[in-house]
Amino acid sequence: MWGIELQRKSEVPLKRQIYLALRDGILSGKLQAGEALPSTRELAHELKVSRNTVNEAYDMLLAEGYVWSRQGAATRVAEGLRLDKEPASEPPAQGEAPLSLLADFRTGHPDLRQFPRYVWQQLAQKTLQAMPPSLLGYTGPQGLPRLREEIAAWLYRSKGLTAMAQNIFITAGATHALHVIADLLYEEGKEILVEDPCNRGMMQTLHNKRYPLTPIPVDAMGLLPEYLDGKRACAVYVTPSHQFPLGGILPASRRAALIRYARETGSYIVEDDYDSEFRYYGDPVAPLYAMDPERVIYVGTFSKVLFPALRIGYAIVPDKLHGRWRQLRTHTDVQNPPFEQAIVAEFLHSRKFDRHIGKMKKLYRERRHALLTALKECFGDAWRPWGDAAGLHLAVEFPGMSFDDAFAQCGRQNGIRITPVEYHCIRKGAHVDKLLFGYGHLEPDEIDKGIVLLRDFMAQSRALPCIV
Amino acid sequence: MWGIELQRKSEVPLKRQIYLALRDGILSGKLQAGEALPSTRELAHELKVSRNTVNEAYDMLLAEGYVWSRQGAATRVAEGLRLDKEPASEPPAQGEAPLSLLADFRTGHPDLRQFPRYVWQQLAQKTLQAMPPSLLGYTGPQGLPRLREEIAAWLYRSKGLTAMAQNIFITAGATHALHVIADLLYEEGKEILVEDPCNRGMMQTLHNKRYPLTPIPVDAMGLLPEYLDGKRACAVYVTPSHQFPLGGILPASRRAALIRYARETGSYIVEDDYDSEFRYYGDPVAPLYAMDPERVIYVGTFSKVLFPALRIGYAIVPDKLHGRWRQLRTHTDVQNPPFEQAIVAEFLHSRKFDRHIGKMKKLYRERRHALLTALKECFGDAWRPWGDAAGLHLAVEFPGMSFDDAFAQCGRQNGIRITPVEYHCIRKGAHVDKLLFGYGHLEPDEIDKGIVLLRDFMAQSRALPCIV
Repeated sequence: MWGIELQRKSEVPLKRQIYLALRDGILSGKLQAGEALPSTRELAHELKVSRNTVNEAYDMLLAEGYVWSRQGAATRVAEGLRLDKEPASEPPAQGEAPLSLLADFRTGHPDLRQFPRYVWQQLAQKTLQAMPPSLLGYTGPQGLPRLREEIAAWLYRSKGLTAMAQNIFITAGATHALHVIADLLYEEGKEILVEDPCNRGMMQTLHNKRYPLTPIPVDAMGLLPEYLDGKRACAVYVTPSHQFPLGGILPASRRAALIRYARETGSYIVEDDYDSEFRYYGDPVAPLYAMDPERVIYVGTFSKVLFPALRIGYAIVPDKLHGRWRQLRTHTDVQNPPFEQAIVAEFLHSRKFDRHIGKMKKLYRERRHALLTALKECFGDAWRPWGDAAGLHLAVEFPGMSFDDAFAQCGRQNGIRITPVEYHCIRKGAHVDKLLFGYGHLEPDEIDKGIVLLRDFMAQSRALPCIV
Repeated sequence: MWGIELQRKSEVPLKRQIYLALRDGILSGKLQAGEALPSTRELAHELKVSRNTVNEAYDMLLAEGYVWSRQGAATRVAEGLRLDKEPASEPPAQGEAPLSLLADFRTGHPDLRQFPRYVWQQLAQKTLQAMPPSLLGYTGPQGLPRLREEIAAWLYRSKGLTAMAQNIFITAGATHALHVIADLLYEEGKEILVEDPCNRGMMQTLHNKRYPLTPIPVDAMGLLPEYLDGKRACAVYVTPSHQFPLGGILPASRRAALIRYARETGSYIVEDDYDSEFRYYGDPVAPLYAMDPERVIYVGTFSKVLFPALRIGYAIVPDKLHGRWRQLRTHTDVQNPPFEQAIVAEFLHSRKFDRHIGKMKKLYRERRHALLTALKECFGDAWRPWGDAAGLHLAVEFPGMSFDDAFAQCGRQNGIRITPVEYHCIRKGAHVDKLLFGYGHLEPDEIDKGIVLLRDFMAQSRALPCIV
């Protein structure tokens, strides 16, 4: 009756079911404008529900304007409600099913199996219990003061970097920091200078902000400052501690030239220090930030040290950008949630963070060694490593070889995930002979096995149908 | 000696202290290009440290290019490193110290004292223990599948809304959802139509995206669709369940007109359902989304139901925008952290969420009643409430009165936080006689006290020096 079929076992209350059925009838035109609904008594009787249930359904229709009624008269369908069905749109194309991988040299992934989950749980419990109710409310766009103080203390004890907690802004990771910085520095017609090659994800972030990107070439030691040119740049995005992806440490003279360029043009240097905690011979490289805290925006992240899903990073921001940063953050995603911030603060404060880094550094050094050994065994002298002994990946040159997207795709189809350096290049052609090996997340035997598979694949690949 | 003063009790290792002191000397020009550093033996002797410590400091300087050395010769300072000190910038102006408040009618704040923290802790503990390591890695820009399924189930049982989990995208709250949507729909020269009045924070979010905003007038029932005009709109931003700030429920005929407008112009409707869980007489209003899932982007949030710092909201997104949404999110802040998502999923699944809403609805209804009673006692018949009995705030008209920024500021100086509706208006003048009372976070006695203070303040305010 009236198109209403009640599901008595549903979690949707009966009154809502009645409301929904009548509303659908009205919108589809089955119940026409001006038509009288049955009296509540009548409908209640027919549907075998209480009259109150029908009354409530009618009240909902009335409150939302689907029907109208006058004292003592029938409830009638309102005017102008009929909506014809739009033709259904095409269902979205399903992404390809992921192929299973036999060797996975993706970059930038820490070994999550080693994460001290039990310690984290204990700190989480302690933090939750101690958290005052005020932290459940809006606590401001800059981040928890305690975390900012702990980060400042840690930067000082680990890298000798003096940064004030008041200049540290918590973000939802490094990508998010870059996203905020891009909005922060936006001026119509300005461009951003980036290293070439440069992390493709980060370039996409800037590209989405409608910035023109100008590539600055990179050699084995990093960005070549003699190519910095022009007055249209609002920022230079660099990875001076461990160039991504080639691995160089930017020499002091180039650092000084970069700072001079920024001062002369009034632009900023965005220093992405994405993995300098892991340096295997010698101490972490000193951040560029120390050379000019008024011109450098330093970006750090916990994704590589703790875990990627944490979504906590930070930026150290010059005074004059603070107000705009707060305003922007307030009107984009407001703030970071407080729990993770409080847990990370405790992790730092208790020095469990430092111990975790120490442990992982040892582990990753062994893995890097396993990678170099496996490459030597499988490729003899036909390769050479680039960059500093640091981070979670290694760029390797195979002189005379050429690697492109087709090679990577074909590798994928053969169960091998590996990235050519060309993937991260703006100007193509300068680094065709290099591949990137992410090793941080792999056990030594996974590395060995992977390199053997890669060698066999490279030997056959000329003959494979997927390489044209 | 050499400007090096070692702090032997510092957490900064001695080798780094030596490195830092020498580096500062080089950058400041105290150590000049070409100058020879002392031999490691000599410096170790003078500083009373092991020779190895000095060797490591020199290795750091060498790796970063501050010095160079040739086999058998002295280590010398590199060229071109001197950076003159930039004149220090002005310290940023300190914000005014917050005045203590005697009555705080700010809008949009739930009562955090009522949050079931113990239940939350239990679920957090359970969730942390059960979480597989894979959730610590990147889990994709759309959000945890389990949370999306629980939200779909909850929307169905609470509002009768049928939404597929595959169309739900988790965000870092409603502001963040709007931020993503603004980027998603951006086209050069397009504008967004907004209700007038409209939440000022949300307008700021759109304004930061460089969108022209066109105001559409609102009456007691919500947006007036006859003012929708032109072909330049890419979206209409509306609050149909409980217009912010005036409180109307958009009638069905206007909903149908809105949908027709969107279909005709190819624009989208952004439905912000910021507090419709709390409706005190009758059930939650049905979302506009149900009328056309291809044209409406529905935005929901947990900030008002759970707590603002949670930073979890969601959008229900038409199929054809999915790909772009994923791409955008990946390159802005990557994804939400997984813990809160998993905890909220469990909160929903266990129906503790539904119970919490039930409890808070009862409490907020009492507070709304307390507010109406206090207004009646203090202002007699000189006021009238606007809008539906819902949400955490009430718009009140005081015929013949006029409230502006100066009134709000003067109130603040007298310990009263209250917002004139004009604050949220684009075209000024249409709602000068209305004030907004946020009551959700206030106990009944705080409400009583606050209204008495407000009455006294209003009685005196003509004579107060802060009102011109």
